[in-house]
Amino acid sequence: MSRNGVVYLVGAGPGDPGLITVRGLEVLKQADVVAYDRLVHPDLLRSAREGAWLIYVGKAPGCHSWTQDEINKLLIECGKAGRLVVRLKGGDPFVFGRGAEEAEALRRSGVRFEIVPGVSSALAAPAYAGIPVTYRSVARSFAVVTGHTNNPAEEPDWASLSTLDTLVILMGLGRIGAIAESLVLGGRSPDTPVAVIQSATTSDQKVVTGDLSNIASRAEGLNPPAVIVVGEVVRLHDRIDWSAIVSTSSDPNVDHPFVDLARELEVATA
Amino acid sequence: MSRNGVVYLVGAGPGDPGLITVRGLEVLKQADVVAYDRLVHPDLLRSAREGAWLIYVGKAPGCHSWTQDEINKLLIECGKAGRLVVRLKGGDPFVFGRGAEEAEALRRSGVRFEIVPGVSSALAAPAYAGIPVTYRSVARSFAVVTGHTNNPAEEPDWASLSTLDTLVILMGLGRIGAIAESLVLGGRSPDTPVAVIQSATTSDQKVVTGDLSNIASRAEGLNPPAVIVVGEVVRLHDRIDWSAIVSTSSDPNVDHPFVDLARELEVATA
Repeated sequence: MSRNGVVYLVGAGPGDPGLITVRGLEVLKQADVVAYDRLVHPDLLRSAREGAWLIYVGKAPGCHSWTQDEINKLLIECGKAGRLVVRLKGGDPFVFGRGAEEAEALRRSGVRFEIVPGVSSALAAPAYAGIPVTYRSVARSFAVVTGHTNNPAEEPDWASLSTLDTLVILMGLGRIGAIAESLVLGGRSPDTPVAVIQSATTSDQKVVTGDLSNIASRAEGLNPPAVIVVGEVVRLHDRIDWSAIVSTSSDPNVDHPFVDLARELEVATA
Repeated sequence: MSRNGVVYLVGAGPGDPGLITVRGLEVLKQADVVAYDRLVHPDLLRSAREGAWLIYVGKAPGCHSWTQDEINKLLIECGKAGRLVVRLKGGDPFVFGRGAEEAEALRRSGVRFEIVPGVSSALAAPAYAGIPVTYRSVARSFAVVTGHTNNPAEEPDWASLSTLDTLVILMGLGRIGAIAESLVLGGRSPDTPVAVIQSATTSDQKVVTGDLSNIASRAEGLNPPAVIVVGEVVRLHDRIDWSAIVSTSSDPNVDHPFVDLARELEVATA
């Protein structure tokens, strides 16, 4: 072959096409083949060079969907044929989503590959809703878990998870009522604040807040993809939400009362 | 004033300058003022336009260091003066590191701001060592915690953290022996695999692996910044590590034995 192929496992970021990394966009622009998932922004695909093969390998309800084995085989064959391949995945390639299995398959077959990490929606979705996953004196740890399981034996240990400061749940909207109940049963107070962020970082972003006792009813009408955040940090949403400040702060007459939030939150969590 | 100022709280990513986001680099190139931390790559600072003010506000042992209040005041004053300000922080601005406090201060003073998330070293450091934080059937959740505390009352609840699949500890190298011991006391097996990744994603990256019983002695000689990963996913390091494959895989004679790793790991965790 004329040159060695290489496969880049690239994180596309959480939705906003500006949140792909510089390195990710650079290899995307050079790619011969782009194998992409659902939730990858169309603007990113438009960055590929003319003549690049764009191959949708995401879920296609009602149509044929690619199996993981088929995707692995595609990456390996294109790599062995000397192609520059970008496997473009939503968020980060190693946070859920089976990127590690693709890396293993490439390694086993001797195809050169690189990981290009991406901004995970587990962090960016809360950030776009003005919610930091950590906050001094309030949240010194956070956990990320998938709410989606086909196998009851693989149900997360909600009792353990309920002891953590901040909990971020991906793919959990369809089971939000059961998850909230499990966390309360696990010992978390029913008035623990919760936010649900739909279509984070895109123009369809919607944020709904509540607590473990009422979030299931409040989140009715939201659609996947959605990120759920549980914990005292959700109280910061009202104070940091910058979608609001972007539209109002240019008016110097708007009054922003000083609130000693750290102290307020310490009291709330004491 | 001639124009409205705006402050961008930008994540610089984990070290490799290619891992800043496209949006982050875009605002960095336009900035009038760049207030940056330790661990921000010099190449990123070189991207700023000629005449931009670069202000180091990180820790400077032995010299005057900026307090958080002083940093907040700088951002607010420059924003009010109509400047385009980039606050450039290592990793992600909302994962530890007090970015949320800066956002609150800006909001309170009515200065327009935006968050530009970054790739967190909590995810990218393991990825660059060939370690995914999640893996089907092996790790369906991960937690991120800081190992650094000045206040014993704020010591993380290691017993709860020891029940999670994957644990990522930032800023914990100096206390790695005590942390490993706490996790074992909390119920985690002493032979749980552990990796320490020093200077992740840079040319100084070093990876040391072991288990909870021996990692403290094996990690001797490593220096901060370092990320510690605890859990069965660390076993994937040998199979996915792509710093190795990049240098060897172009030789088609190298034999890569097929290993059904998922099954092997399931046995290991059963």
